Amino acid sequence: MGTTASPEEDLRRLFPDMVEWRRYLHRNPELSFQEKKTSAWIAQRLRGFGCEVREGIGGYGVKAVIRGALPGPAVALRADIDALPIEDEKTVEYRSSVSGAMHACGHDAHTAGLLGVARYYMDNRSALTGDRVLLFQPAEEVAPGGAVSMIRDGALEGVDAIYGVHLWTPLAFGKTATKAGPLMAAVDDFYIDITGKGGHGALPHQTVDAVLAGSAVVQAVQSIVSRSVDPLQPAVVTVGSIQAGTAANVIADGCRLTGTVRTFDDGTRKLVKERFRLIVEQTCALYGAGVKLDYREGYPAVVNDAVEAARFFKVAPRLFGAERVEAAEPVMAGEDFAYYLREVPGCFLFVGAGNEDCGAVYPHHHPRFDVDERGMLMSAALLIAMADDYAGMNKTGRGNGTAEPHAG
Amino acid sequence: MGTTASPEEDLRRLFPDMVEWRRYLHRNPELSFQEKKTSAWIAQRLRGFGCEVREGIGGYGVKAVIRGALPGPAVALRADIDALPIEDEKTVEYRSSVSGAMHACGHDAHTAGLLGVARYYMDNRSALTGDRVLLFQPAEEVAPGGAVSMIRDGALEGVDAIYGVHLWTPLAFGKTATKAGPLMAAVDDFYIDITGKGGHGALPHQTVDAVLAGSAVVQAVQSIVSRSVDPLQPAVVTVGSIQAGTAANVIADGCRLTGTVRTFDDGTRKLVKERFRLIVEQTCALYGAGVKLDYREGYPAVVNDAVEAARFFKVAPRLFGAERVEAAEPVMAGEDFAYYLREVPGCFLFVGAGNEDCGAVYPHHHPRFDVDERGMLMSAALLIAMADDYAGMNKTGRGNGTAEPHAG
Amino acid sequence: MGTTASPEEDLRRLFPDMVEWRRYLHRNPELSFQEKKTSAWIAQRLRGFGCEVREGIGGYGVKAVIRGALPGPAVALRADIDALPIEDEKTVEYRSSVSGAMHACGHDAHTAGLLGVARYYMDNRSALTGDRVLLFQPAEEVAPGGAVSMIRDGALEGVDAIYGVHLWTPLAFGKTATKAGPLMAAVDDFYIDITGKGGHGALPHQTVDAVLAGSAVVQAVQSIVSRSVDPLQPAVVTVGSIQAGTAANVIADGCRLTGTVRTFDDGTRKLVKERFRLIVEQTCALYGAGVKLDYREGYPAVVNDAVEAARFFKVAPRLFGAERVEAAEPVMAGEDFAYYLREVPGCFLFVGAGNEDCGAVYPHHHPRFDVDERGMLMSAALLIAMADDYAGMNKTGRGNGTAEPHAG
Amino acid sequence: MGTTASPEEDLRRLFPDMVEWRRYLHRNPELSFQEKKTSAWIAQRLRGFGCEVREGIGGYGVKAVIRGALPGPAVALRADIDALPIEDEKTVEYRSSVSGAMHACGHDAHTAGLLGVARYYMDNRSALTGDRVLLFQPAEEVAPGGAVSMIRDGALEGVDAIYGVHLWTPLAFGKTATKAGPLMAAVDDFYIDITGKGGHGALPHQTVDAVLAGSAVVQAVQSIVSRSVDPLQPAVVTVGSIQAGTAANVIADGCRLTGTVRTFDDGTRKLVKERFRLIVEQTCALYGAGVKLDYREGYPAVVNDAVEAARFFKVAPRLFGAERVEAAEPVMAGEDFAYYLREVPGCFLFVGAGNEDCGAVYPHHHPRFDVDERGMLMSAALLIAMADDYAGMNKTGRGNGTAEPHAG
Repeated sequence: MGTTASPEEDLRRLFPDMVEWRRYLHRNPELSFQEKKTSAWIAQRLRGFGCEVREGIGGYGVKAVIRGALPGPAVALRADIDALPIEDEKTVEYRSSVSGAMHACGHDAHTAGLLGVARYYMDNRSALTGDRVLLFQPAEEVAPGGAVSMIRDGALEGVDAIYGVHLWTPLAFGKTATKAGPLMAAVDDFYIDITGKGGHGALPHQTVDAVLAGSAVVQAVQSIVSRSVDPLQPAVVTVGSIQAGTAANVIADGCRLTGTVRTFDDGTRKLVKERFRLIVEQTCALYGAGVKLDYREGYPAVVNDAVEAARFFKVAPRLFGAERVEAAEPVMAGEDFAYYLREVPGCFLFVGAGNEDCGAVYPHHHPRFDVDERGMLMSAALLIAMADDYAGMNKTGRGNGTAEPHAG
Repeated sequence: MGTTASPEEDLRRLFPDMVEWRRYLHRNPELSFQEKKTSAWIAQRLRGFGCEVREGIGGYGVKAVIRGALPGPAVALRADIDALPIEDEKTVEYRSSVSGAMHACGHDAHTAGLLGVARYYMDNRSALTGDRVLLFQPAEEVAPGGAVSMIRDGALEGVDAIYGVHLWTPLAFGKTATKAGPLMAAVDDFYIDITGKGGHGALPHQTVDAVLAGSAVVQAVQSIVSRSVDPLQPAVVTVGSIQAGTAANVIADGCRLTGTVRTFDDGTRKLVKERFRLIVEQTCALYGAGVKLDYREGYPAVVNDAVEAARFFKVAPRLFGAERVEAAEPVMAGEDFAYYLREVPGCFLFVGAGNEDCGAVYPHHHPRFDVDERGMLMSAALLIAMADDYAGMNKTGRGNGTAEPHAG
Repeated sequence: MGTTASPEEDLRRLFPDMVEWRRYLHRNPELSFQEKKTSAWIAQRLRGFGCEVREGIGGYGVKAVIRGALPGPAVALRADIDALPIEDEKTVEYRSSVSGAMHACGHDAHTAGLLGVARYYMDNRSALTGDRVLLFQPAEEVAPGGAVSMIRDGALEGVDAIYGVHLWTPLAFGKTATKAGPLMAAVDDFYIDITGKGGHGALPHQTVDAVLAGSAVVQAVQSIVSRSVDPLQPAVVTVGSIQAGTAANVIADGCRLTGTVRTFDDGTRKLVKERFRLIVEQTCALYGAGVKLDYREGYPAVVNDAVEAARFFKVAPRLFGAERVEAAEPVMAGEDFAYYLREVPGCFLFVGAGNEDCGAVYPHHHPRFDVDERGMLMSAALLIAMADDYAGMNKTGRGNGTAEPHAG
Repeated sequence: MGTTASPEEDLRRLFPDMVEWRRYLHRNPELSFQEKKTSAWIAQRLRGFGCEVREGIGGYGVKAVIRGALPGPAVALRADIDALPIEDEKTVEYRSSVSGAMHACGHDAHTAGLLGVARYYMDNRSALTGDRVLLFQPAEEVAPGGAVSMIRDGALEGVDAIYGVHLWTPLAFGKTATKAGPLMAAVDDFYIDITGKGGHGALPHQTVDAVLAGSAVVQAVQSIVSRSVDPLQPAVVTVGSIQAGTAANVIADGCRLTGTVRTFDDGTRKLVKERFRLIVEQTCALYGAGVKLDYREGYPAVVNDAVEAARFFKVAPRLFGAERVEAAEPVMAGEDFAYYLREVPGCFLFVGAGNEDCGAVYPHHHPRFDVDERGMLMSAALLIAMADDYAGMNKTGRGNGTAEPHAG
């Protein structure tokens, strides 16, 4: 087995399986931290391929190791497996059968694609240089995420590099993109409870007006991005909601604000957090109001290794043609793949999955979200090509196969 | 009957009836514009006294005319009769028997007191100079109020002057107070709907942030009182509530603000309204947001006639002793008695009704609100004394009885 | 001498002298705390009338005591004597002969009027009940003012009551006005120095933007009047100047704001001061800026005694006719007459001095300010009538002359 | 002549001349638009080398064309020649001899370096492929700048590509850097005149408070960067100065603000300008103030051609070694080299000129600014290498010399 001249051909033969697997998962979504059946099902598939499987890693995580016949580095490939608390509004036969849960972010396809990779490698172990470590990670959608606990449970033990893919509907099917350095944002959220002193709407001097304090906070935090952050560092501070008071003629005794902060750089992230706390606390103090700030740090930024990003820009054009490879703009959303990249060099990649022809026109997290399933094929090919290039394999004569030394 | 030397003695004999009437009303409250049974019950009482009664005036209003034996002016006395949508939390036997309705502002006592006045006058018609017009007005609590419609239906036809009383728990029982000029505020409310453009919390440039626009409105309207209003003119602009957005990571597409405005002077009221509209509209425009402002004019200020207020400061000390008569500070709440005072000279009066001994310690509109019922007796005596002084009657030798000419 | 039936007739005969004196002073103004020659000239006049004079009281203050033939209370009358640092732009022959100094507030006329009163009393000592203490006070225009130091030097020793007059051009000649309670404002000033960190206009993150901090202070202090002060208490917080930065492309390292605060009530004054300091300090802190606030308390409010104000409304109509007597609105300017009223009961009075016919149409402190000099005659008559009424004298049969007992 | 094996060796021999020329210019600075003598001096030098010279181009601009012996493209190289209105505080013998003018930005060295290039090319014309167009541009420091008028006068006629260098003291001598795309910012300035209505500090209601309106503008424009601009697009809006009012107790009748705007992208630049105007006008309108906004567009962003930037990253490492070549961060300052890049492909380059050993430690525009003069040598070598590479010349065997086709 595993005898064709190119991985692409092998993968093409595996594609119907990938589609079947993905649709099974799509029908049977499980929410973050609850992926019990999904996890067992994945492990069963992997064992069926003959993989060495470890379950229960970082919760419902699954780690499969495929050991190559030839000595070489260990390269990890990661897929996320959890679904979202969204009601599936699609009408396709593979739509979610679970009320209030849906694979609205493509994790089903990530998982199926990585199962295809597993099968490919098991079929081609004799030619494999080094090991491949396949990580099926739970709970990507909800902080603190599954990556942290998987790493704690040894997911990266002995691993030299890691790659991951996100099918991306804003990118047309057929395209692939990434960039060196920050690719996806650090995402922090805040929850502010301001305590004023309520009273009659006509007697403000007997009160501490929480509406005034809350609105002053909204105004003052604008200065963080406009003045405190380096103009060359992207940053967003959004107050998403403000809620205070119920009656026209009563001064509100409290005001609740929630919002989100996005940054790409650790120093900027820290600066914004510090400025935010100072501004919120001092603003409330100046109006005589109390305040409780719950500032929740989410995932850090996804920062691609420069050498690994360069590998993508070498490998991907050879695979797909230069016209299909793009330099990505940073994306304001977050991903807990970030944590892996803090441990080992690697690169996170976007693979186009948008296509009007198959209804894959909705943004991620939309109740009608879907992907062009052929993105799974590209993903699998890309992950294999990255890993094999790192390992110095020269499949199909398209490169010199030398793994560059790593700067850091 | 009606033969005693002083009204006070007559009234004292009527007091048990007043208490009974008041408690009946307290047990059977009806909300503003729904005072059907209350109105019929009042008319029945008045007819029982022999009064000339007209029902259905300005809705559920009742007008009784008592014609004196001696020629003289027509003086109106007014009570309000509606209850509030508050659940009575008292435990007294006369507590409200109607769920969700309660006489939490003392209108029951106003009505009972004025019934006492009616009875007194009917008993003393032979000595009465001029007419007394008793107005039982519905819907004081809810704009546009019952005064406007009662006036439209002829409540003040032929009336020369008008007096009204509010039992007032912030004032201790035994005291009475008023002031010349503005006594109670003009009350206007506003309802603002700001329309932004929602979007992802990380992509502010694709949105119009309604939280930002709404909070900017809150900040900007502070300048109306701080800069635009004459510092000698009391004014309040309160934003009582602000509601925008539901999620931390979504930029809100709308923001709703409600609030109240209090002024004492027509020019100031108009100025505030104009400045408010300009500020709200321009502030939203500068953030690219749309806005719909619903600015609802409520009652105008209660402005006491200077001569009639002076009459109070002459009459009340004689009745109760100088130590019981106070100069009132303006009150920020509103009253639709204001409309009567725009038509004929008159004066609105506070009669103390607070008393720890009988549990009358709660502010108006509180679920445990109650009054010292003896305030009814003082009210009745005060209204009669004011009216009779106006009419030039020299009861009990306490004045010269000359009705001063009116300046305006 | 001093033999006519009424003070008015005596004063009328003295009027040409008053005019001459006033014009002499107008030609020879001296600035606050520099009234050396003015003071000596006044003392010389007073000694010429035979008064008992003490000089050098509270700086260049002069105190004259006139002892009546009949026993009675000691009543003080006060005039201020200093001029302003304004260039006189009038063309009248009596215009200022001193460059950069001008009697642009009428103190010359106050002084001349009080000299007339001195002369009158010296001519009528045999009929005088009690003593009259004439206070010629320096430095009214510049805090801490001359009143404080005159009081410290014994100006009010043995004094039972005090009256003072301000000629007032916003009031037409012929009118006079005052009010019980707060008549003129407490005046405090503030000087704010904000220290940021300057830098290149394109690199805000390396700076602390003093323009932003300063403008935030301006916005935030609006809430003091709009929210923290009792709506029934007049108050003004004005930022009169803001100065920061010099170049378009340089971020300012400092910002200076100056302004003024006006209140009428001690509690409100204290509240505003406290809120102001808190807001300024916290606002600067939230932007990371340093700040030095110099909050200078000026004169307290002029608060007229209720009994003495009532005396005015009894005395003045008798003197001038009821149509000439008005209830004053509070005035937002300050006066150090306030300090006398904190020591003894008394009343500060406005006497109309505006008149188009004699060019007295400019506001106080204007380079063309002038008064209708006949205001001096009214002032003198009013001060004498107030003092004599207080002392129980029944001149010209116009009152019962009983000095009412003082409540407080 | 011009016979050595490498340009570097030729240039090294010319270096003493470059130093002499640079120091002559440093001693004799001329301000923007006044470079009469500088221009004539440059032309004289160029003619001395035998160049074909055109003077008076775009004001005091000078254009020299050097025609190669071999056919090929025309490549322009540009130096700026104007000085700044700064007093030279250095003590070196070559310090400025002109009071109030100084080469505080390195234009003297740019000019001297380009004269060295001229001399080199004249010495090596026989081997030169294509033409070299040397542009000595006046008035880089003051908008609208000299580039626009030089282009209008034909500076770029027949030119295929352009390169320019800035000696850069924040970069250590020995280094060189640039980046594809936006390198230096678009710089726009604004001047705002707000017209309120002045008045007494205690009577705000009679005024339109320009301090309040001005400070509100400062606050509101913060939202442009924080909300309206794409977070991935660097942008700065700085209010550099605010000036209003002079006295603590007078409400200011006007407020003047000045500031600067920096962007890198045409769409963002336009957006900021539009938002700025709207915010300024609406904010003033909401306070009832008038406003005049003078928004002066300066230079657009310097946007390097991607292919030409790639050429730098190929050429520079060969010249200086890879460790000396850096990817530049965008710089917030502006440069009118931007205009050339709108006409033809090209690249603007930084050459390190900072060096503690020779006192070159001050930022540009500092009164003690100086450069490590060896930067001229690197600049000349770099400009020649870029031009020759573009022209397909394979000097010293360091490249294949193939001019890549241009994408656009």
